[in-house]
Amino acid sequence: MDEMVLERAKRISLLLMDCDGVLTDGWIILLPDGQEVKAFNSQDGHGLKMAQRAGLRTGVITGRGSVALDQRAKEVGIEFVFQNAKDKNAVMNELLHSQGIEPDQVAFIGDDLPDLPPMQRVGLAVAVSNAVAELKSIAHYVTEKHGGHGAVREVIELILKAQGKLEGNVFHFFA
Amino acid sequence: MDEMVLERAKRISLLLMDCDGVLTDGWIILLPDGQEVKAFNSQDGHGLKMAQRAGLRTGVITGRGSVALDQRAKEVGIEFVFQNAKDKNAVMNELLHSQGIEPDQVAFIGDDLPDLPPMQRVGLAVAVSNAVAELKSIAHYVTEKHGGHGAVREVIELILKAQGKLEGNVFHFFA
Amino acid sequence: MDEMVLERAKRISLLLMDCDGVLTDGWIILLPDGQEVKAFNSQDGHGLKMAQRAGLRTGVITGRGSVALDQRAKEVGIEFVFQNAKDKNAVMNELLHSQGIEPDQVAFIGDDLPDLPPMQRVGLAVAVSNAVAELKSIAHYVTEKHGGHGAVREVIELILKAQGKLEGNVFHFFA
Amino acid sequence: MDEMVLERAKRISLLLMDCDGVLTDGWIILLPDGQEVKAFNSQDGHGLKMAQRAGLRTGVITGRGSVALDQRAKEVGIEFVFQNAKDKNAVMNELLHSQGIEPDQVAFIGDDLPDLPPMQRVGLAVAVSNAVAELKSIAHYVTEKHGGHGAVREVIELILKAQGKLEGNVFHFFA
Repeated sequence: MDEMVLERAKRISLLLMDCDGVLTDGWIILLPDGQEVKAFNSQDGHGLKMAQRAGLRTGVITGRGSVALDQRAKEVGIEFVFQNAKDKNAVMNELLHSQGIEPDQVAFIGDDLPDLPPMQRVGLAVAVSNAVAELKSIAHYVTEKHGGHGAVREVIELILKAQGKLEGNVFHFFA
Repeated sequence: MDEMVLERAKRISLLLMDCDGVLTDGWIILLPDGQEVKAFNSQDGHGLKMAQRAGLRTGVITGRGSVALDQRAKEVGIEFVFQNAKDKNAVMNELLHSQGIEPDQVAFIGDDLPDLPPMQRVGLAVAVSNAVAELKSIAHYVTEKHGGHGAVREVIELILKAQGKLEGNVFHFFA
Repeated sequence: MDEMVLERAKRISLLLMDCDGVLTDGWIILLPDGQEVKAFNSQDGHGLKMAQRAGLRTGVITGRGSVALDQRAKEVGIEFVFQNAKDKNAVMNELLHSQGIEPDQVAFIGDDLPDLPPMQRVGLAVAVSNAVAELKSIAHYVTEKHGGHGAVREVIELILKAQGKLEGNVFHFFA
Repeated sequence: MDEMVLERAKRISLLLMDCDGVLTDGWIILLPDGQEVKAFNSQDGHGLKMAQRAGLRTGVITGRGSVALDQRAKEVGIEFVFQNAKDKNAVMNELLHSQGIEPDQVAFIGDDLPDLPPMQRVGLAVAVSNAVAELKSIAHYVTEKHGGHGAVREVIELILKAQGKLEGNVFHFFA
């Protein structure tokens, strides 16, 4: 692990992420009535609960809108959910302002071009392994795992380890 | 990239494609009531929006019929949707005639034998990596990515790059 | 291709197959109401239509029951559908008797132990690449492709080629 | 196969397992109404029926809750289903007490941290190939197959073979 990445990770108090291609495999699954089915990853879910218990706040900023994402966020303790976001940078700025959080305290995980503007401003910019080349080239860290296959869990463990919160027995999270 | 492919791509103003196996992974997902669920790719969706903003028109010609495809087309700016097409060549010919477009201005992406007749007539015939051998053998270009896993995005970027429309900062598409 | 396999394929007039793991990837997808979603393969579908046009009859014998399979069979020209079959051998025997077909005119594609008894009796026993070891060890042919990923299409093309029905231009099937 | 694993497997009379990531690929598939779709594996299903016929009892302990899992359990002969389990160890202890089963007669298959406490107590602790590192490091056996892709079948065959119950002809299970 790059020392610079660990230094950046130490300062993170808020982990923001895109949904499709990051919390999912990128499938947009449409039902005949036009509503959406979402397929999330079980191990990401446990990671998000670990983040919550460790005091790492989390949020999703996505250009799409689905009831399934709201449901998933509630289940796994994602604190902020912004759907139908046309300008992710503007949404993030407003959130940081309202919460009194500085950009260098924020990590952002993205997979495609709409994620680029917020990624260019945060302390820890993460591209998933399935991200487009433009994002990988500016990311501080590229995940080993694919979106929807544990990439979010990987980033959460990276941050919590850098902050010394996974030392000793990680299992107290599930005791 | 083959120089001939780039020359052909420069002239394209209309990108036509099959649905199943091209915009999807080829899964025909049937619900108990006989209706269909469709799983599309998030990054293809952003690519189709990029095409629209760059003035590259797009359309789908498919032998199947689903409400989900109409919905997806609306979301991502696919201009033409022809479903339940028994003869894809005839459908394409009528479209080109009504729009005043020449075959050498058209690209067609296919994965199976019903796509062969239109592919034999267009300026840029593209087979996805998961296409049957007969299509790959006559295609001008075979994608690196699999249908439903970014093959359509790959072709859109190829065309826009050949036309100089991705020079400089691609991110203006999402500004 | 093994010469013995081609000899066996020449005599086939009826192609029987299991559903889950053969026409699908093996996923049993259950909705909250207990009904089933089935995910079939687009290229298998075109292959089954090719079989029908070439005079190769097809049928499915499965231990499960779903409306989606009936729907798919209708779409792609599968002539015989036996669902909730507890004893596949008995079902096949009755079918052969009623149709006046000899076992050496039959091919059977399976992936798991319930398919073994009929496979031991037919002229061409095929195990998909994802079949259990016991089936592969007695099969005349093991597919290169995985069930739900084109294995059925592969077997249909094998049979039609052995019978000289794919010589010249295969595209007349879709003209 | 490690001799110690076979010795442990010989004593097993109850096979317990997690659901998501073990009986499934780990996808949490949410419908617009917040209910869940579950995708199980066909070959695992036949394996679970084999276990039942061979007298190996089976059960699931999961932190989530879905009607689909109840339905699947009924289909394939899973005897015990504990859903919405917050403390898997406590649930297992109560089950063993009520059934008069000792921990060394139990196998447990897990993929993530909530499965660790029961895995630390049973006679045969199994981590699927997709399990987190912490589970693999304490497991007696790590499967070759991925959860939802035959890992449960693999463990059932391992146990039945160790007990001499797959000797001769396995096909009597489906006669």
